Amino acid sequence: VERGRLEAFSDGVIAVAITLLALNLFIAGPGHGPLITQLSDRWPSFVAYLISFLTIGIVWVNHHELIRQMVVDRIVLFVNLFLLMFVVLIPFATGTMAAYLTSGDADAHLSMALYILVLMGMAIAFGLLFGLSLRHRASAFLALPKGVQRFVIFRFTAGNAAYVVALIVAFISPPIALLIVGIVAVYYVFDNTSRYLVPGSAD
Amino acid sequence: VERGRLEAFSDGVIAVAITLLALNLFIAGPGHGPLITQLSDRWPSFVAYLISFLTIGIVWVNHHELIRQMVVDRIVLFVNLFLLMFVVLIPFATGTMAAYLTSGDADAHLSMALYILVLMGMAIAFGLLFGLSLRHRASAFLALPKGVQRFVIFRFTAGNAAYVVALIVAFISPPIALLIVGIVAVYYVFDNTSRYLVPGSAD
Amino acid sequence: VERGRLEAFSDGVIAVAITLLALNLFIAGPGHGPLITQLSDRWPSFVAYLISFLTIGIVWVNHHELIRQMVVDRIVLFVNLFLLMFVVLIPFATGTMAAYLTSGDADAHLSMALYILVLMGMAIAFGLLFGLSLRHRASAFLALPKGVQRFVIFRFTAGNAAYVVALIVAFISPPIALLIVGIVAVYYVFDNTSRYLVPGSAD
Amino acid sequence: VERGRLEAFSDGVIAVAITLLALNLFIAGPGHGPLITQLSDRWPSFVAYLISFLTIGIVWVNHHELIRQMVVDRIVLFVNLFLLMFVVLIPFATGTMAAYLTSGDADAHLSMALYILVLMGMAIAFGLLFGLSLRHRASAFLALPKGVQRFVIFRFTAGNAAYVVALIVAFISPPIALLIVGIVAVYYVFDNTSRYLVPGSAD
Repeated sequence: VERGRLEAFSDGVIAVAITLLALNLFIAGPGHGPLITQLSDRWPSFVAYLISFLTIGIVWVNHHELIRQMVVDRIVLFVNLFLLMFVVLIPFATGTMAAYLTSGDADAHLSMALYILVLMGMAIAFGLLFGLSLRHRASAFLALPKGVQRFVIFRFTAGNAAYVVALIVAFISPPIALLIVGIVAVYYVFDNTSRYLVPGSAD
Repeated sequence: VERGRLEAFSDGVIAVAITLLALNLFIAGPGHGPLITQLSDRWPSFVAYLISFLTIGIVWVNHHELIRQMVVDRIVLFVNLFLLMFVVLIPFATGTMAAYLTSGDADAHLSMALYILVLMGMAIAFGLLFGLSLRHRASAFLALPKGVQRFVIFRFTAGNAAYVVALIVAFISPPIALLIVGIVAVYYVFDNTSRYLVPGSAD
Repeated sequence: VERGRLEAFSDGVIAVAITLLALNLFIAGPGHGPLITQLSDRWPSFVAYLISFLTIGIVWVNHHELIRQMVVDRIVLFVNLFLLMFVVLIPFATGTMAAYLTSGDADAHLSMALYILVLMGMAIAFGLLFGLSLRHRASAFLALPKGVQRFVIFRFTAGNAAYVVALIVAFISPPIALLIVGIVAVYYVFDNTSRYLVPGSAD
Repeated sequence: VERGRLEAFSDGVIAVAITLLALNLFIAGPGHGPLITQLSDRWPSFVAYLISFLTIGIVWVNHHELIRQMVVDRIVLFVNLFLLMFVVLIPFATGTMAAYLTSGDADAHLSMALYILVLMGMAIAFGLLFGLSLRHRASAFLALPKGVQRFVIFRFTAGNAAYVVALIVAFISPPIALLIVGIVAVYYVFDNTSRYLVPGSAD
């Protein structure tokens, strides 16, 4: 029951956040120039929608696989809230980043850095949740051979390292920083390291 | 458990998207002309609300019948995310289409084409999910006689073909294109081909 | 499973709709006159929030008791969608009504009539769902003595009759029409006729 | 089943409300001054987001622990709706408060008082729900030693008392009032008095 309601609440928050992403796409409408111009001027919003949707989607998939093997107590509930606090910030951070991506000045750097910081906050919260899952003997992770454990941690760390790189690049070229974030998302779609966390599915 | 959480998340996203549709109905309010004019000028928004609500509703009903008989793995999770990515775009595409439907110029064509492309994306993603359901022997579809299988695929393809026709018509007469989309929605309310997908209910 | 997902989706839609009601309360903010004036000018929004929240809340409670004893098939799914289509319209209808309530002209009449029509649509859809619940022998309602059945139907019809009265009054005095809608809501909080629908709870 | 759907609906409403909090963060965008100025001028929005997110999060955690041991009847459903009515008001109250926090005039006092009144309404509704949980012998609370019962009630009352203090302080120094609300939130993260309410977990 504990776990069920944690999942239901998390699914609810993630579902609302992922849907609110599309609010950033709404255009001004008639009387604000040809539609084709309005849409093409907003290409950063569409690219940002795609990348943020994928990123939240991956967090949902991995959250789902991680929680399945966790003992849910009060600490887990609050660390999960900490994770959701960053998830909820993503539509705001995505919209701000997309609005300034092509401004070509300091605002483009700042808004991209803000976006990446929110994603890093989310990744760190997810890491904390993963850390909490190791407290219990029943952890599927702890049952893995040491070599595989190191491999899982390496993969996991790789994503965070890429975000650090993207954060630095944000101050040089915001579009390239966004590209890195997009590559991380695509990478995690194909990387199924988290399967090692699910008992009986790592075959 | 896997399937339960996939359903819960999908239901959440679809529920939020279907509810956000109504945001497109909000009028400017006092000081923007008589209410009756404001409302009647916006008839495309009301028609579009009806059609998009029905379309998302049907996707929910069919999604629900399809998932019930599926083995949920990581590939299904991501194809499902791909489906939801289009569902989430519907309030935006509906609002944009309704805003330009009566503009009588190229913007009406473009916004209608955008709307239909989003619906086609959703239909294609649904088709992929259906395809994935055939991988497993337990698939209710595969247990059907060949003739019924062909019939199910024909019905399914019919909807997609109608969207292709609507897409072409969008560049000639956007209101007729919308009418086609509406007919497809009404058709799928009465067509219960998907009952063949549910074990024991195809009697 | 069928019923579970119908409930989950309905709960999701109702939860989003009830929460979006509060969007109508947002004020213009600094630079638009003293806050006390902004808030007191908007008293209709607060009263409307209260009444609509209560009305949607009652629909949720009764929906929940009705669905519990129903056999869920494709027809029920679509009638339920029809019900939700009106629920989703409530934040829009509430906001429009509140914006014009004190305008003192034809717009006040029209917006109140629109609001009541949406509530009536919801009540009719709920009645259809109730009617569908009678198709099956297992219906708790059908097991009741005839006298109690007539009593339940009377109570149920009373609410709809009050909405018809309110609709007429909307064209004379919108605030009194709103008062009637409010009384209906309060009445249904204390009326627990729907307990007769729940097997074993009508003691 | 009763309890399950009450939890699902409450989780849905709380999830949407907590996510809508972030809507208050959206900035005006390009053409409204440097981004750094837009963001730093809005520091109250970010602080308010943090405090309201934490406060709603704690209500969710405690709601979850309280409902687990309750017998859900019609009265509980409506008291729960009363609680949710305040939860739904939080994004509006948070946004208004943040918009006026630094205005330095009567509006700052009023908007902070409004914010705290909404939180107090929520706390009172939660207290009513707690009171309802005592009606039944099975209540984990009633099984506690008298001394622990008094301790639980003291802790619970402490939060409400702090809100009363904050309400008074709102008319002297709004930022200090917000600080008190923030301290209450942080206090309840670390206070796990509610564990006494969960059978078998108070060790």
